[in-house]
Amino acid sequence: MRDVAIIGVSQTKFGELWDSSFSQIITEAGVAAVEDANIQGDDLDAMFVGNMTSGLFIQQEHIASLIADHTGFNPIPSTRVEAACASGGLALRQGIMAVASGYYDTVISAGVEKMTDVVDATDAIAAASDQEWEAKIGANFPSLYAMMARRHMYEYGTTREQLAMMSVISHDNASKNPRAQFPFKITVDQVLNSTKVADPLRLLDCSPITDGAAAIILCPAEDAKKYTDTPIYVKASTQASGTIALHDRKDITTIDSTKIAAKKAFEMANITNKDIDALEVHDCFSINGILAIEDLGFVKKGEGGKAVEEGMTQLDGEIPVNPSGGLKARGHPLGATGIAQVAEIVWQLRGEAGKRQIEGAEVGMTQNIGGTGGTAAIHILSR
Amino acid sequence: MRDVAIIGVSQTKFGELWDSSFSQIITEAGVAAVEDANIQGDDLDAMFVGNMTSGLFIQQEHIASLIADHTGFNPIPSTRVEAACASGGLALRQGIMAVASGYYDTVISAGVEKMTDVVDATDAIAAASDQEWEAKIGANFPSLYAMMARRHMYEYGTTREQLAMMSVISHDNASKNPRAQFPFKITVDQVLNSTKVADPLRLLDCSPITDGAAAIILCPAEDAKKYTDTPIYVKASTQASGTIALHDRKDITTIDSTKIAAKKAFEMANITNKDIDALEVHDCFSINGILAIEDLGFVKKGEGGKAVEEGMTQLDGEIPVNPSGGLKARGHPLGATGIAQVAEIVWQLRGEAGKRQIEGAEVGMTQNIGGTGGTAAIHILSR
Repeated sequence: MRDVAIIGVSQTKFGELWDSSFSQIITEAGVAAVEDANIQGDDLDAMFVGNMTSGLFIQQEHIASLIADHTGFNPIPSTRVEAACASGGLALRQGIMAVASGYYDTVISAGVEKMTDVVDATDAIAAASDQEWEAKIGANFPSLYAMMARRHMYEYGTTREQLAMMSVISHDNASKNPRAQFPFKITVDQVLNSTKVADPLRLLDCSPITDGAAAIILCPAEDAKKYTDTPIYVKASTQASGTIALHDRKDITTIDSTKIAAKKAFEMANITNKDIDALEVHDCFSINGILAIEDLGFVKKGEGGKAVEEGMTQLDGEIPVNPSGGLKARGHPLGATGIAQVAEIVWQLRGEAGKRQIEGAEVGMTQNIGGTGGTAAIHILSR
Repeated sequence: MRDVAIIGVSQTKFGELWDSSFSQIITEAGVAAVEDANIQGDDLDAMFVGNMTSGLFIQQEHIASLIADHTGFNPIPSTRVEAACASGGLALRQGIMAVASGYYDTVISAGVEKMTDVVDATDAIAAASDQEWEAKIGANFPSLYAMMARRHMYEYGTTREQLAMMSVISHDNASKNPRAQFPFKITVDQVLNSTKVADPLRLLDCSPITDGAAAIILCPAEDAKKYTDTPIYVKASTQASGTIALHDRKDITTIDSTKIAAKKAFEMANITNKDIDALEVHDCFSINGILAIEDLGFVKKGEGGKAVEEGMTQLDGEIPVNPSGGLKARGHPLGATGIAQVAEIVWQLRGEAGKRQIEGAEVGMTQNIGGTGGTAAIHILSR
């Protein structure tokens, strides 16, 4: 197996991109990543694209072909990967395996979603749950995560204020990230007084509806120094599946797929939690950020809320979480999120994260979730 | 790069499967492939699933998680790949790269589509074209392929009867395939007198709307003899992209993605057309079967119609095409087709194809197309 390095990354501005089409935002990200890697489009051997539901959002499937065509990267192989909100993380994994196998040398893995100006997003997103057993009886994602939050509060005494602090810290970080959808601070009071969405979750507990794209250029580790002085190495890429429906789990406050994938990732990278300097987790709702730091093993089960409240996850804390602003404040264009998480870690490890830079970060980790944990993808990267 | 072998295959009956859900048909295929490989579900390390448009057909995305869960293969990594009607071929490619890379040892690559009892299929399928430049102005797939057929007739003198013969031969073969949707013969007259769909194409030039699933088990070539006395080896797996929209091509009677992927496949396998004993091509419409044998290099451009008329592609001809019955008569459950094509070649190379057996077949080839050629995937297999 060949080791793999990242030599280029990009992310478009995330937000309501009324002036750009689906095709335009992914083209912008693709071209920017190629430029960041200091290569030419012709140098690319293959493309992988993560996207959840262009079919339901813009009535367009076969988007990998569309993108290869519209970006001018055609005729290279172009493959779409879909795993709900983990589509980006899985597109990266396919790119890594394509390089590791020797099938291709220089590969772009990207993610894209166009969500704001099309259909009712909540219905389309609900297609990531078990349609027959969840969505069709009214359980959409805010309500599913609300149940997980309520149970966590009941089991472990997690408070409403602790959930709110997850969002507050994410916005603090996003205020330093010009690519973020919401680059401004919020307060605990604002979260607690925001519109109720699905009790106990309120509007400012929820990641937004977002347009955006991000991209990553991969090559064999042994060749990376030809392109850049600061290659970032893929130390682990793992994935696991959980039950797609929440009701089939023994414990709805634990995401087993995260635990399984994380255990394998630490083994593959041959490190422990203590070695991680920067962490991007899948905080689609505030509760999921808290579950993540528990299931990844940074705190004991049930102690996530307290850790967040006490500042452990702040930019200057023991384990900085979501320096980018996370799904909550950087934004959450479903298929692009897993790629944007890794792009943020790459900027952190290169020392290019500007005002949100984690000083001396050498090893970073990402956790990307599909649905309520039906899929989990984990990456560990190092300088 | 590790060489890869196929140790198990399966295909459900293709057709209008009113009694089975999406989840049930893919589970049936998965379990049958595991049994065919003489392994246990626990032996699987990862799963890849090709599916075009479960979002539009059954409002269900995140199907790889759903399938891992419903089959009981959970918690192994499960990844959906989408490339319109080439989804199956690309799911197989991801499985091959996963094994070749050393990331996983025993992998299942499957394909599935549930099409008959849901929404208007033609509209959903049109999402595989360029929605903004083709589908929204009324160019669905029958009309796009009709233009390709009309131009081929104009340029090369291809006749209506030659197109019809493509379907007649496919039905001849399907009459010997118990898994086929239409296991019966038809005549040239029946094709010529069937309902006009998009001139010059008639109903019996068109592949049907189909429910179905198929699956393949892969492992490292060096381990294959542990499981079976008749492993089939993957000699080439290639892919290329073409323009998604037909109007962007210099020549609408040639599918460039097929030509590019085929050239690479012959190089990778280090063989020529003359070495191929069995060929499965993507005859979604009769014209596409004729384009395939031209673009794959079995006949010169423009001579495909004549070759079909003269019997070259019959089961006992110079190069037997679609012994399974092809998309026309075996059926075309979009995401399952690329996998079913390879399953047929495996049965042929094992000598297990019953009444449609091509005697002494040692090397086989498949061509799987997305849209009108925005994607092409080619596989070459040998005993």
